[in-house]
Amino acid sequence: MSRDWQQVLARRMESLYVSPFDDLSYLWGIEDIIMFSGGTPPVERVPAERFQMAMAQAWEEVDRAYLYGEGAGYPGLRELIAHRMAQRDVECRPDQLLVTNGSQQGIEIICRLMLDPGDQVIVEAPTYFGALQVFTPYHTQIAGAPTDEHGLIPAELERVLEGAPRAKILYTIPTFQNPTGATLAQERRQAILDLARKHDLVIVEDDPYGELAFDDKPRRPLRADDPDVVHLGTFSKTLLPALRIGWMVLPDAIHNQALYVKEASDIQSDRFVQRAIVIAARDGWLERHVSESRSLYAERCRLMLDALERNMPDGVTWNEPDGGFFVWLTLPDQLTADALLPIAADQAVGYLPGSAFYPDRRPSPALRLGFTTLPEQRIVNGIERLGRAVELALEREPAAR
Amino acid sequence: MSRDWQQVLARRMESLYVSPFDDLSYLWGIEDIIMFSGGTPPVERVPAERFQMAMAQAWEEVDRAYLYGEGAGYPGLRELIAHRMAQRDVECRPDQLLVTNGSQQGIEIICRLMLDPGDQVIVEAPTYFGALQVFTPYHTQIAGAPTDEHGLIPAELERVLEGAPRAKILYTIPTFQNPTGATLAQERRQAILDLARKHDLVIVEDDPYGELAFDDKPRRPLRADDPDVVHLGTFSKTLLPALRIGWMVLPDAIHNQALYVKEASDIQSDRFVQRAIVIAARDGWLERHVSESRSLYAERCRLMLDALERNMPDGVTWNEPDGGFFVWLTLPDQLTADALLPIAADQAVGYLPGSAFYPDRRPSPALRLGFTTLPEQRIVNGIERLGRAVELALEREPAAR
Repeated sequence: MSRDWQQVLARRMESLYVSPFDDLSYLWGIEDIIMFSGGTPPVERVPAERFQMAMAQAWEEVDRAYLYGEGAGYPGLRELIAHRMAQRDVECRPDQLLVTNGSQQGIEIICRLMLDPGDQVIVEAPTYFGALQVFTPYHTQIAGAPTDEHGLIPAELERVLEGAPRAKILYTIPTFQNPTGATLAQERRQAILDLARKHDLVIVEDDPYGELAFDDKPRRPLRADDPDVVHLGTFSKTLLPALRIGWMVLPDAIHNQALYVKEASDIQSDRFVQRAIVIAARDGWLERHVSESRSLYAERCRLMLDALERNMPDGVTWNEPDGGFFVWLTLPDQLTADALLPIAADQAVGYLPGSAFYPDRRPSPALRLGFTTLPEQRIVNGIERLGRAVELALEREPAAR
Repeated sequence: MSRDWQQVLARRMESLYVSPFDDLSYLWGIEDIIMFSGGTPPVERVPAERFQMAMAQAWEEVDRAYLYGEGAGYPGLRELIAHRMAQRDVECRPDQLLVTNGSQQGIEIICRLMLDPGDQVIVEAPTYFGALQVFTPYHTQIAGAPTDEHGLIPAELERVLEGAPRAKILYTIPTFQNPTGATLAQERRQAILDLARKHDLVIVEDDPYGELAFDDKPRRPLRADDPDVVHLGTFSKTLLPALRIGWMVLPDAIHNQALYVKEASDIQSDRFVQRAIVIAARDGWLERHVSESRSLYAERCRLMLDALERNMPDGVTWNEPDGGFFVWLTLPDQLTADALLPIAADQAVGYLPGSAFYPDRRPSPALRLGFTTLPEQRIVNGIERLGRAVELALEREPAAR
């Protein structure tokens, strides 16, 4: 005689946006499958020895780090972050930073601070699905603003804003976007900032990939041009996701409130890991590590692009990213990536279909290919398999003429 | 020409419940002050060497723990927790557990799952202030149910429930309560469970101290008597707070939804720390560590009680806890702990006033004394100082006769 739990759930639980990885779990059971769904550094780039040393050293510092405290983050780490942001033209003081459990918690905190029921959030269409997971339970309407290979399109954003009188947040990944890999063009930046100001919109800049430029020149964040931009950073992509350490760059006026939200959520982030990052970073190690990762990712991206060139039938297109983790591939009109997925699975290859990145999850001709996690030969073989799958699908669904 | 940030904040931010420690920060500047505000294990009980070893070993396991995954928690840790819960008569499977960043995140997750605006939360009056920090931004009304030295009083709870038609959650710390140290009497438990069932109330049992019984017999949680109780546990008090690892025992019917909320919040808890706890726990180490802590806390509690007996003027009363971290002291009627605080500060002694533990923060004659964090001689000296402060305050405010 257990209770009816569904009856006592809050209304917000009706609008849960479930992780798209849940739908893909069956793929992992396929023998020898090559999965392009990864959005992380590869296992071989994990600095295990360095962190083993750094963690041991962090545990040796017998201070009050064992207990509660440093809700805004370890001051030493905040100094390191402020220093690295300054190298990218972002002027911020350590006391404007809030350390979070990855940038995921930063998205959550800004929503908590800003969103009333009925408020609207503007996102790039497509966008990072983990952000959609945060937004939907806030009884918010999510509007997608179209993008192209140069990121958000100011005229399109303006059109969306005109139909969104309660727009409160613009969530954007302006650099090496997830999933498209696109970077907001320099000449569009001021227009976007002006539109935000005109419509009283808070820009939330999620920047997990901005340091991972193939030419080794970290990109200038939007926050460098406007101190009212809330900037989210993370070590998940430069070091590794399981550290669960990211940060927010916040305007002074709301830093305290953000800190209270963080404290109510989980009191503080891991103080040992924060110290370990600072210890590991010493003597230029962090810069070298990031730089070596960039070269590897550039090489793997090149390999993927070449393989696509060789293996994709006519009518398939894709972007050529300058950094980050992803190639965004678009199938001929008559196909959707959702319908292609079982055919690809038969060829032992998998990916995240584009639908996962749209608020309404509508079937999409596009799909995301992550190039960082797989060894070189697997990338080549995987794209060959994907090419065969697309050909098979086209045979079943020839273009209407 | 920065924006007016207060104008764009969500309405929930108006009802922030700020940590009471913020009000006490000035006390830490007083030379040689003895602070009884601590609610943690003492620094000398921190198993630094053991965790140095365990963390290094966790980093050696070259597996996918580096990346995303295990949103519900490391299976090995969930097995350990389920095993330890079983020893306290709680039957639960590892797949009913959700690992959280301390039990603080457990409180947050259950609110996210359950609370619509206007819903009511019943708490013990007084209760843990960190829970109030979570509840207030949910546009919820918080009602305090009176307690005595045997915990919640069923008749009083019933009276409160009659005036709270939208009561959804009963948040309770039934064992060695924070701040009163009281434990819910055995003969009241069924009445509380029955009331919850009758009023369709979700019982959230926060149990940070239940394993820390001075007689070395961990107490039976409410969850042992009713599988519909949502139980929150943590390693913050048995090991140390900075690990930020706790757990929820959830009914099957809402485990998935709770997992989605966790994933949207911060994807996963620290996978290395979770492994390190399992590694550290091996060969009976965890049981020995907890048992040794219990003896130390029992001794320090005894010392504090004896010192109170010697130093407190007539009219001051206090409980005698059987476990946990806190003595709850009540001043004569004409005093409040809030008004006493500056007088105590002049004597170089500090504490958390009772007002911090009530939803409305009304001045209270009671105060919380933590006995775990201070060395023996500091406890004795601190209580002497507090005794002098109370005497001084009574001289200024003699009882009306």
